[in-house]
Amino acid sequence: MRAMKWWGWGEETVSFTHEDKPELAPFLQCHLAIDVEQDSSRPVGFDELRIPDSGVPSSLWLALERAVGGEWVSTGGLDRVVHARGKSLRDLVCHRRGELARLPDVVVRPADEPQVVAVVQAAIDGDAVVIPFGGGTNISGSLEAPASESRPVISVDLSRLDRVLEIDEISGLARVQAGVFGPDLERQCNARGWTVGHFPDSFTHSTLGGWIATRSSGMQSDKYGDVADLTRGLRAVTPAGMLVIRPVPSTSTGPSVREMMLGSEGRLGIISEATVQVHRLPQSRVILGYLFPEWGEALAAMRDLAASEVSPALTRVSDPPETAFSFSTRKTPTPLDRVKSAALGRYLQRRGIDMDAVCLGFVGYEGTERHVSAQRRAVGRLFSSHGAICIGRGPGALYDQKKFDTPYIRDYLLDRGTLADVSETAAPWSLLPRVYERVMSSARAGFDELGVVGYIMCHMSHSYRAGACLYFTFAFKPAPGREPLDQYEVVKFAVQQQFVDSGATLSHHHAVGTEHARWLEQDISGPGVAMLQALLQGFDPGANFNPGKIVRTRLTEQTEQ
Amino acid sequence: MRAMKWWGWGEETVSFTHEDKPELAPFLQCHLAIDVEQDSSRPVGFDELRIPDSGVPSSLWLALERAVGGEWVSTGGLDRVVHARGKSLRDLVCHRRGELARLPDVVVRPADEPQVVAVVQAAIDGDAVVIPFGGGTNISGSLEAPASESRPVISVDLSRLDRVLEIDEISGLARVQAGVFGPDLERQCNARGWTVGHFPDSFTHSTLGGWIATRSSGMQSDKYGDVADLTRGLRAVTPAGMLVIRPVPSTSTGPSVREMMLGSEGRLGIISEATVQVHRLPQSRVILGYLFPEWGEALAAMRDLAASEVSPALTRVSDPPETAFSFSTRKTPTPLDRVKSAALGRYLQRRGIDMDAVCLGFVGYEGTERHVSAQRRAVGRLFSSHGAICIGRGPGALYDQKKFDTPYIRDYLLDRGTLADVSETAAPWSLLPRVYERVMSSARAGFDELGVVGYIMCHMSHSYRAGACLYFTFAFKPAPGREPLDQYEVVKFAVQQQFVDSGATLSHHHAVGTEHARWLEQDISGPGVAMLQALLQGFDPGANFNPGKIVRTRLTEQTEQ
Repeated sequence: MRAMKWWGWGEETVSFTHEDKPELAPFLQCHLAIDVEQDSSRPVGFDELRIPDSGVPSSLWLALERAVGGEWVSTGGLDRVVHARGKSLRDLVCHRRGELARLPDVVVRPADEPQVVAVVQAAIDGDAVVIPFGGGTNISGSLEAPASESRPVISVDLSRLDRVLEIDEISGLARVQAGVFGPDLERQCNARGWTVGHFPDSFTHSTLGGWIATRSSGMQSDKYGDVADLTRGLRAVTPAGMLVIRPVPSTSTGPSVREMMLGSEGRLGIISEATVQVHRLPQSRVILGYLFPEWGEALAAMRDLAASEVSPALTRVSDPPETAFSFSTRKTPTPLDRVKSAALGRYLQRRGIDMDAVCLGFVGYEGTERHVSAQRRAVGRLFSSHGAICIGRGPGALYDQKKFDTPYIRDYLLDRGTLADVSETAAPWSLLPRVYERVMSSARAGFDELGVVGYIMCHMSHSYRAGACLYFTFAFKPAPGREPLDQYEVVKFAVQQQFVDSGATLSHHHAVGTEHARWLEQDISGPGVAMLQALLQGFDPGANFNPGKIVRTRLTEQTEQ
Repeated sequence: MRAMKWWGWGEETVSFTHEDKPELAPFLQCHLAIDVEQDSSRPVGFDELRIPDSGVPSSLWLALERAVGGEWVSTGGLDRVVHARGKSLRDLVCHRRGELARLPDVVVRPADEPQVVAVVQAAIDGDAVVIPFGGGTNISGSLEAPASESRPVISVDLSRLDRVLEIDEISGLARVQAGVFGPDLERQCNARGWTVGHFPDSFTHSTLGGWIATRSSGMQSDKYGDVADLTRGLRAVTPAGMLVIRPVPSTSTGPSVREMMLGSEGRLGIISEATVQVHRLPQSRVILGYLFPEWGEALAAMRDLAASEVSPALTRVSDPPETAFSFSTRKTPTPLDRVKSAALGRYLQRRGIDMDAVCLGFVGYEGTERHVSAQRRAVGRLFSSHGAICIGRGPGALYDQKKFDTPYIRDYLLDRGTLADVSETAAPWSLLPRVYERVMSSARAGFDELGVVGYIMCHMSHSYRAGACLYFTFAFKPAPGREPLDQYEVVKFAVQQQFVDSGATLSHHHAVGTEHARWLEQDISGPGVAMLQALLQGFDPGANFNPGKIVRTRLTEQTEQ
């Protein structure tokens, strides 16, 4: 059984460090007033946690034991704490302080779909709440039971449903159990020459079912699609029985039930299996780095790329603050690195490129050698017309290696009394510059209001013909004398409210949960919320399925009062 | 005000004829026992129709007049008959006989979105039923009021909402009123250098709002996407007020409300506006014809194309029966045509290709000259490995010219006492051969059961990475002494039931309506239907919005009892 740290991201043995990155400590000192040696803000010890007793009636306990076998029904403290929340900044701060949520009363680990059915039946019979749990990486509050929930709460950990059941090699469709983690999914597919190609930041610690339940998007969505595109068929254990969505390529069967399950965050049932599009492992795979003279030009270049006949696998470009941060995390350079770096500096200077404005971008290419080289040439021509220069494979390879390590940084910063978080959105290309400017201003106004030294940076990723995602990361050391989470709220609110005020969406791929629910009506309008209410309330009238997430139904509002 | 024939397809001045197609009359004689000169089964005259009085209470009438102005509120007989049904085979047969449906009591033509709001408000205040009407081309029974509907029925004709309001040239997004017809939409976009690229068979007589409400797919969906892909933003007048879906490229806001409106057939409200993806008019556009030695090889070639790095705009291949039909509709050949045709015949003979097994396919290429020529070469290589030969631009150009004329053939055949209809589906590539074989067998078993001479033919179109659409057309002259629509039902049922029995979907792009509703649960499973019920019933508790379509809600069941 794999589980993340109860107080932070990832595995116990892995953490982020500045020690092999000579430029990072000065960067953090300069921009966030952090002394990296002062790491005294550590989490409380597990022994210090006050874990309330589990409230599972014996009839429910017996039914769960019958469903999955006694060894897979757990009321252990660590299990209940790990399954109580996801990994939002708020979640991390609270857990580190020992401020626990409404813990699940019991964690069950079914082995297969029939066992999930039995668990759900036991829950409904016992009027309990079920909250499906994949990898626990959600950062929108999708996993926490309502504080006042008086019914027994069951966390259904799907991690034993971890197998690729079948690959239809003719159609490129893999039938997969929903609890499989990213690396395990790829390993099983790769062994037969296939890839799903879904690589979110959380990849190493998140599951297929979790991706589907939150409308996840991977770094290579330009080629492989968002999870909503690559999920063709579905099976889910619902209040009305087994939902079975056939894996057809497209269909005209009324409002799409497949799209209702995508992003449903457990409210319509527990996803037990999906049939996903798979692709042959590419013959060639290259990620090239590019430097753009400034942000507006970088966005314009990416937009032109999206409108062109080129079909890259990955597009991403950082704004100047993120580019500067990225450079500051370089490992100790070799003598050759120094020579290269100096030569590049002189070259940029000769071209009149302002190093404070420069933006680091990546484009990933996949396919046959012929395809990759044709696409590289086409992108080279297109980017040149925007004043960009290609800096080769080195930075791209580095990005590719460390892309899943980023989430560890938050724990590193929390150890140093600094809050860091992310907020991301999507908008049409025409709005992106405005959304960017306004969000940066709003966040900085938030820092000013708090009287703190803050940093905010952004990258564009996930290109579509119509627009792209903007992904913001912000950090600051809270001012003394005021609750840090209240200060976090000021900045988070400023960023999110600016998304919806500027015509963007509340989230491109992080789901709604409880964290984003207050912006839902501003994003999808009152009737949009009313449709979701009708669906959720009508389909789960007892509010047994992860109540309180996305929109509040009448019943959960009553429960919470 | 444009309107189709009340008894058939398209404009009064246009009809299908065999006269310029020397091979067609013998073909129809041979395969359907039709004597083309015997065209005595004509529709009844309009004067013979018994049109019941309109039941609009005066308060509702006044409210509608206030909403849209007196000249746009019509209770004229022709208006009510034209708006009573779509154009399914059943619709055509009934209308030709003078067997009218539950006619709408009134047809209103709002000029803009505020007028649609006013109409809907009047309808709700008067407990009336509203049925949105675009071009009236639906062939699944989506437009007909329930026979026993006792409330006033208002057909809301959107055809005055016909303008492209704005094109965001940076994002390639056009904001368009929902009532615009295909040709008008393309004309307005083309004038500014853009295209939507959505070309369903019904293109000339259907509207953007109708495409969205039925999850339509166009012939060039390989490039431009289904309507579900190209519709980014939406505005709709709903029971809960104005629904506004932002045109963001992708979003993570819970179950997709955008996807709930797609295929909603008026049950969730009236779509007033959409923001759709547009593309620059391509520099080059070519459709090439290919001959495949046999059907299995043709499907395999198309599947390999879908898995390749080539991105054509259109893919289509006919089975041998449809290929034979297609050849039989050739215009009177020129001497040069005859020489070419003879040469081709000798060439195929030398290659050992059996003309009875040969399959005619098309691939459309669009883009820059460079892109088109590279893609043509790649497809040429790929198809060669499946034994196909390219027969140049002639057949493709012909297909492109006459692609919107096909629906007229049904009226031509009905005039000759012959029933013809279409049924289409989608399935993964691995299932397509089996679905095809079983549907052909089932239909032929149906013909045998009826003791009739029948013809069924098929093409594959709309390729996706995972699968494709199979589009069947069948025809037969009903046996004497038994209700023709009962005989039609035998064949239609055999085909549709085989779709769902074989793992395919009940429709790829023709919607559910009332015609396909009985297969819905077999396709999307009981819980899928329950989700739709929860949504429709919870969001429109008064069942004022096109009741009885897709799934029956409790209220409409009561009404219909």
